[in-house]
Amino acid sequence: MTIYPVIMAGGSGTRFWPLSRRDRPKQLLPLAGSDPLLVDTVRRLAPLARIDRTYVVCGPVHAGAVRKLLPRLPKANLIVEPVPRNTAACVGLAAIHLRRRDPGAILAMLPADHHVAHPARLRAALQSAARVAAKGHIATIGLRPTRAETGYGYLQIGRPLAGMAPARKVDRFVEKPDARTAARYLAGRRHLWNGGMFVFRADVILEEIERSLPPMRRALERIARDLGTTRYPKTLKRVFPSCQSISIDHGVMERSRRIAVVPADPGWSDLGSFATLPEVRRPDRVGNVIEGEAIVLDGRDNVVLARKGRPVALIGLREVIVVDAGDAILVCPRDRAQDVRKVVEELKRRGREELT
Amino acid sequence: MTIYPVIMAGGSGTRFWPLSRRDRPKQLLPLAGSDPLLVDTVRRLAPLARIDRTYVVCGPVHAGAVRKLLPRLPKANLIVEPVPRNTAACVGLAAIHLRRRDPGAILAMLPADHHVAHPARLRAALQSAARVAAKGHIATIGLRPTRAETGYGYLQIGRPLAGMAPARKVDRFVEKPDARTAARYLAGRRHLWNGGMFVFRADVILEEIERSLPPMRRALERIARDLGTTRYPKTLKRVFPSCQSISIDHGVMERSRRIAVVPADPGWSDLGSFATLPEVRRPDRVGNVIEGEAIVLDGRDNVVLARKGRPVALIGLREVIVVDAGDAILVCPRDRAQDVRKVVEELKRRGREELT
Repeated sequence: MTIYPVIMAGGSGTRFWPLSRRDRPKQLLPLAGSDPLLVDTVRRLAPLARIDRTYVVCGPVHAGAVRKLLPRLPKANLIVEPVPRNTAACVGLAAIHLRRRDPGAILAMLPADHHVAHPARLRAALQSAARVAAKGHIATIGLRPTRAETGYGYLQIGRPLAGMAPARKVDRFVEKPDARTAARYLAGRRHLWNGGMFVFRADVILEEIERSLPPMRRALERIARDLGTTRYPKTLKRVFPSCQSISIDHGVMERSRRIAVVPADPGWSDLGSFATLPEVRRPDRVGNVIEGEAIVLDGRDNVVLARKGRPVALIGLREVIVVDAGDAILVCPRDRAQDVRKVVEELKRRGREELT
Repeated sequence: MTIYPVIMAGGSGTRFWPLSRRDRPKQLLPLAGSDPLLVDTVRRLAPLARIDRTYVVCGPVHAGAVRKLLPRLPKANLIVEPVPRNTAACVGLAAIHLRRRDPGAILAMLPADHHVAHPARLRAALQSAARVAAKGHIATIGLRPTRAETGYGYLQIGRPLAGMAPARKVDRFVEKPDARTAARYLAGRRHLWNGGMFVFRADVILEEIERSLPPMRRALERIARDLGTTRYPKTLKRVFPSCQSISIDHGVMERSRRIAVVPADPGWSDLGSFATLPEVRRPDRVGNVIEGEAIVLDGRDNVVLARKGRPVALIGLREVIVVDAGDAILVCPRDRAQDVRKVVEELKRRGREELT
C-alpha cells in the first residue's frame, strides 16, 4: 500500500488581492508564515511520502514558480494542466498518471492552499484513510467543526465501517448551510467539515468517474494512451480542454456510494480570505494580526500586512483589514473580505489587468 | 494707508501626517488642490498688495522651500525666525520690520495654511479691517459660523464702531466651546469664528505688546536697533529665543481693549485635519473625496489620497481616511483625524524620526 500525495495547486484565487495575482496565486504566497502555502503543504506530507512520490498539479503559468519553490520535486511529478478544468478533471488526470506508475497506487489528493496547525494529526488521518482506500473506498478527511461555520460544506456521517475505525460511511454531502443549520450541525455532532481532502485508489476513482462522468473518463483514457510518449503534450492539450469543468465533490463524490470519512482534528483552516488570518497567525493581546511595521493606536482585531520599511498607522479601528502589496493597497472590514474579488473585477473593467 | 500682508508660515503641523513632515509642513502641501497652501495664500492676497509689499515669516528649516515656492518674493521680505516662539513674537518681529520700512504700515497678519473659497470676500473684509486699523484699532476678521463647530475659538461681538460699518467692537474672545455652547453661539448670531487673521498698525501692536508682555517688547526693540545692519542676524539669534512662547490671541488680543471685528463670509476653513478636506475639495456623489486612483466599493464619505500608480481599494467603509504618502500609510476614521499627531509621537518613541 503506497500513498502518493497529489497536491492540487491549480487555483487562481482572487480573494487575497492585492497580494494574490494571476501569476502569484494564493498557494504561492506565504500567508500563514514565512513559506508559501504550497511549500508548507509539501513539507507537512514529507513524513508520509518521499518527494519522489509526491505530485503537484498546476497550470502552465505557475509551473515555473512551482519548480523554483520545489527544486527537489522530480520533473515527471509536476502535472501541468493546459487549461483549468476544476477538480474532477484534475483528479482524473492525476489518477491516470499514478495508475501507470503503480497500478495499486493510493492517491491522497490535497489542496495546496490550506493551513494545518497539527500536521501529525493530519498524517495519521491520511494513513487511516489510505487503509480504507486500499479496500476500494473513497475516503475523505472530515474535520471536526469548532464553530458554526457557514462558509464550508459538511459531510453527514453514517454507520461505522466494519473493522476500519475510526472510518465511517458518509451519508450525505451538504452544501454550505445557513447559520441556523450550521449551529444544528455543530451541536448534533453528526456533521464534519469537508476540507476537500480525498484518498482513493487510482482505479477506483476512475471507475467512479466512469459512472458519473462517462465522457470525462473517455477523454482521460485517450490521454492515458499517450502517457510516456512524445505525443502526450499534444494529446493533453487537445483532449483535456474537452473535460467538463466540475468539482470532484459535485461531479463524483456526491453521486458515489463508496464514500467513507475519517474524522480528524488537525487545526485545519481553508484560509478563505484575509479574515481567516487570525486563525493561523498569532494575534497580539488585543487581537491584531500584524506583519511588517504597524502602529495601531486604540484598535483591535485588525489584520495589517505592511511592507518592509513602509509603516501602516491605524487609529481607532476594529476588525479592519489593511494590506499593502507594494503596487496596490486594500482597506476593508473583516466581514467584507470575500468581496475583494469584486475589486479585481473592477480593475479588469478599468483596463488595469496588470494589477489583477 | 498701505497694507502689508504678513503670512505666518512657521507651523510645523503634525496633523497631516503622513503627508506632513518636519521639513514639509502643512503650509507647503497642496492640500486644497494643486498648489501648496502658502502659494494659494499669497495668490489670494495679490490684488491687495504687490509681492514686494508681501512678507512671509517662517523657520530656518523651511526658508529654502519658501524661496523656491515664491521666487518673486524679495529676499528682505522673508523673515526667518531662528526658533519658533508662537504667534505673539512672530507678530512682534514682523511689526519691527514693517515699522522701519513704513512708520504708518498696516499689517495684515494671516496664517499660511488656511483655505478660502471666496478670496474676493476676504480681501474686501481685509480692506474694511485696514480702515479700522488705520484709526488705531486692532481689527480681526470674524468668520460667520456655518455650523456648531467645537474646534474653533469664537469672538463675541459688541457695539458697532461709529462710522466704520461693518466693523464692531469685540466684547470677548471665547475658547473652543462644548457642543451645547457652540449650538447656542450658532443660533444667537452674536459670535463669530476667530480665524487668527488680524489687521493693525505696527506701532499699535507694539504698544499692545508693551502693555501685556513688556519683556517681549524690550526684546523686540533690542532686535530693532540692529535691523538693517550686519549685526541683525546675530542679535536676532541671541535675543529672539528669550521671547515668551505665547499666541497673539492669549498674549495680547484677549487683554486688549482696542479689538474690533469685521464680519466676513469668505468660505473659510482652517484645514485642521484630513477630516476637513471635504470642505475644500469637491466630494463625489456619495461623499468620497478621492485623489489619485481609488476603487471605492459600497463606501461613502471617505477621504482617500492615493499615490500615482498605486491604487487604493476600499470596500464597505464610511467616513474613513486613507492616505498613502509613499513611505507610510495612514488609515483612521474621520472623527479620529486629530489623533494623527499621536502616531507622530509614537514614531519618535520608536526612533523613526525620519518618518516624522
